[in-house]
Amino acid sequence: MERKKIVLPESEMPRQWYNILPDMPTPVEPPLNPGTGQPLGPEDLAPIFPMPLIEQEVSQERYIDIPEEVLEKYLIWRPTPLYRAYALEKYLDTPAKIYFKNEGVSPAGSHKPNTAIAQAYYNKISGTKKITTETGAGQWGSALSFCCALFGLECKVFMVKISYNQKPYRRIMMQTWGATCIASPSTETKAGQSILAQDPDSPGSLGMAISEAVEAAVMDDDTKYALGSVLNHVMLHQTINGLETQKQMAIAGDYPDVIIGCAGGGSNFAGNCLPFVRDKINGKDIDIIAVEPTSCPTLTRGPFAYDFGDTVQMTPLLAMHTLGHSFVPAPIHAGGLRYHGMAPIISQLVMSNLIRAEAVHQLETFQAGITFARTEGFISAPETDHAIAITIREALKAKEEGKEKVILFNWSGHGLVDMAAYEAYLAGKLADHAMPEEEIERALGDIASLPKPKQFKG
Amino acid sequence: MERKKIVLPESEMPRQWYNILPDMPTPVEPPLNPGTGQPLGPEDLAPIFPMPLIEQEVSQERYIDIPEEVLEKYLIWRPTPLYRAYALEKYLDTPAKIYFKNEGVSPAGSHKPNTAIAQAYYNKISGTKKITTETGAGQWGSALSFCCALFGLECKVFMVKISYNQKPYRRIMMQTWGATCIASPSTETKAGQSILAQDPDSPGSLGMAISEAVEAAVMDDDTKYALGSVLNHVMLHQTINGLETQKQMAIAGDYPDVIIGCAGGGSNFAGNCLPFVRDKINGKDIDIIAVEPTSCPTLTRGPFAYDFGDTVQMTPLLAMHTLGHSFVPAPIHAGGLRYHGMAPIISQLVMSNLIRAEAVHQLETFQAGITFARTEGFISAPETDHAIAITIREALKAKEEGKEKVILFNWSGHGLVDMAAYEAYLAGKLADHAMPEEEIERALGDIASLPKPKQFKG
Repeated sequence: MERKKIVLPESEMPRQWYNILPDMPTPVEPPLNPGTGQPLGPEDLAPIFPMPLIEQEVSQERYIDIPEEVLEKYLIWRPTPLYRAYALEKYLDTPAKIYFKNEGVSPAGSHKPNTAIAQAYYNKISGTKKITTETGAGQWGSALSFCCALFGLECKVFMVKISYNQKPYRRIMMQTWGATCIASPSTETKAGQSILAQDPDSPGSLGMAISEAVEAAVMDDDTKYALGSVLNHVMLHQTINGLETQKQMAIAGDYPDVIIGCAGGGSNFAGNCLPFVRDKINGKDIDIIAVEPTSCPTLTRGPFAYDFGDTVQMTPLLAMHTLGHSFVPAPIHAGGLRYHGMAPIISQLVMSNLIRAEAVHQLETFQAGITFARTEGFISAPETDHAIAITIREALKAKEEGKEKVILFNWSGHGLVDMAAYEAYLAGKLADHAMPEEEIERALGDIASLPKPKQFKG
Repeated sequence: MERKKIVLPESEMPRQWYNILPDMPTPVEPPLNPGTGQPLGPEDLAPIFPMPLIEQEVSQERYIDIPEEVLEKYLIWRPTPLYRAYALEKYLDTPAKIYFKNEGVSPAGSHKPNTAIAQAYYNKISGTKKITTETGAGQWGSALSFCCALFGLECKVFMVKISYNQKPYRRIMMQTWGATCIASPSTETKAGQSILAQDPDSPGSLGMAISEAVEAAVMDDDTKYALGSVLNHVMLHQTINGLETQKQMAIAGDYPDVIIGCAGGGSNFAGNCLPFVRDKINGKDIDIIAVEPTSCPTLTRGPFAYDFGDTVQMTPLLAMHTLGHSFVPAPIHAGGLRYHGMAPIISQLVMSNLIRAEAVHQLETFQAGITFARTEGFISAPETDHAIAITIREALKAKEEGKEKVILFNWSGHGLVDMAAYEAYLAGKLADHAMPEEEIERALGDIASLPKPKQFKG
């Protein structure tokens, strides 16, 4: 019998996260205070994050111990299995060996709890009573709700109103775990009130929800804010994924030639690939591909610039690829990939040519998801389907070239809470959406008056 | 760190199923042909089941080898983890040790693929091209669709119309796996046509859907029918669960005093407990509890009698506990437990006092599910919440008695496709439903003219 699933014993689960900051050939440029234009100090972040996370955000330690209490919670679902996708290989008739890391086995169904557990823990030991956050489609909000429940923390999630109404399942998951989930814009914050005063029917946006969540955290000493992607400490916590994968690939007796992950804010992609980027820096030849939607092509078409993380210009300025803080992507079903910016670490690694990016159309991603479900059996999140689409392209390329390449992709989550998207696809109701050319002008306008990073690329 | 998750290495996964038939102190009484009143022969079943399954249905072999091709598919998600529920124990402040077996890690999210894989395989090697089945809420239909995809079989699922319309997610899962899912009653069968002629707005029922699925199988030589519970061969395939659990309990260094599972048709309950029933027959002292809803109290209140498996009286007569084939349970959210009958094996074991049953109200089950989600992290299927409710009762009883009991329950599936049920509960929209007293009279009327089993109990 072929060995399909490579299981890592619990005793082999990594006990440290990997921090890529000290290994980066060109360092990440520092976040700036938008008021002063000066690099942020810890005091700028203290009102919203607990100190251990602020320290991790700028740490230059290569390995950071995972606290015992976090390891204990990770063991609820970790180590996660690595699979050899024999059935997909056979279907594609490719000489490539395809592996995928299954991060969908967590109770929330995705990779998000890797950092949610850690953030809940550090908040707990820092005296935080309540955490606020924002969520779009709900992957992050549900993951944080789950983790707050485990540590006895209150959790308040501002969920983009249109998703709150159209995608009730993840909202109900949050409530089942005891969190409060509020449609944003809401009347609970000044930001929300002012938006509603201008447009009582506002459908909301991730940017608005961030503003509300940050305001709610700042207004209360016992309350902090949590972010599910983009920041360095989030990438750090996610690396447990790639560190496990490296051990499992060794058990399988293979090493990847190509690594693929979808990238919205960058956290699932970073989690799987950063430990391999370290190997690449040390001389390994690996093609590492971040996959994004053509409707939100941050890495493939966005400038590298300083920009706000949110649309209402409240956050620090981050040096990243950005489509501009005013960008509104087409309403594709991969909600987790509809973000105008990108993690500074991922952006910098693209600038350093250690990672490259590809954009893919929506219909190709769902076709890939269907193929995957009917061969490998798992139904994927629409975000994950982006990684599968490029995996299939790479496997077919290997077939054309007659090369026995080893392809690894990150299966970031299951799609069982996203079945409405598959229904729309199967009914022929979905379309492809490319970002219009003129949006680049708008993006450049958004960043025109902001400070420029040293490596600015417009 | 406490050992929370007990993982069985793949090399330790059982290679045989356990068949309890030869070990039963009182044998299961044979199914009867409703026309002749005589015990069924293989020829009665040949139009709808492939021969290997008919042979398993009556086999007296204690252990039956699992085919290599089935083992290979099992390894997609098996062995499944056994958990020690430390957080729940702590919350309940009980001296009891609580273990649960997590069958929710399969791609379909429940225990159902344990038999769906086997049935798809035996059909495949017997030359079947297409499998028909019925489904209520969709757990079984989605599991069979998944498994048919893996073996390249066509699959047609007749889904009860009211669920088809109200619970779209599992229907879309079936379609994603390539199955055809049809609202029943349909115009595709004579049974469906005749029902629609009488009532064009019929919401459908499991009984009607069975009639349609069986008819569709009988009408076509290349098509067979599959059932997801009740029959002996289904119980057999599910025993891989309990056989794994026994090995994992040995690793944990404990043996259960109490075993709990929810019971609708009986398959998930049987899967976990039958290998332990064998131990009980051999002298072990174990309290084995089947949990059912008060709205559908088949084992706690139904007669033990011969009855039809379906409402339209097409199936063989089975010796079982039954609420009568005309029973319509209240519309509780645990759709998988809304069945008037019960597996003959489970019914006989209750008659032999090897298993006992308890009924629980709907609100208590959801409260238990919420408690479980906020302590252990997993969101359970509404059916599974029944097992959790009685687990909590037993753990609190152990506390009262000051006894360090070992309680094991079967966590049969996750609830991520059932969030609407939790929403209704959290909004205070659910009620308790006890079966009215007069329903017993109706049940006795249903079976009055049918042959009686030797151990008839009215």
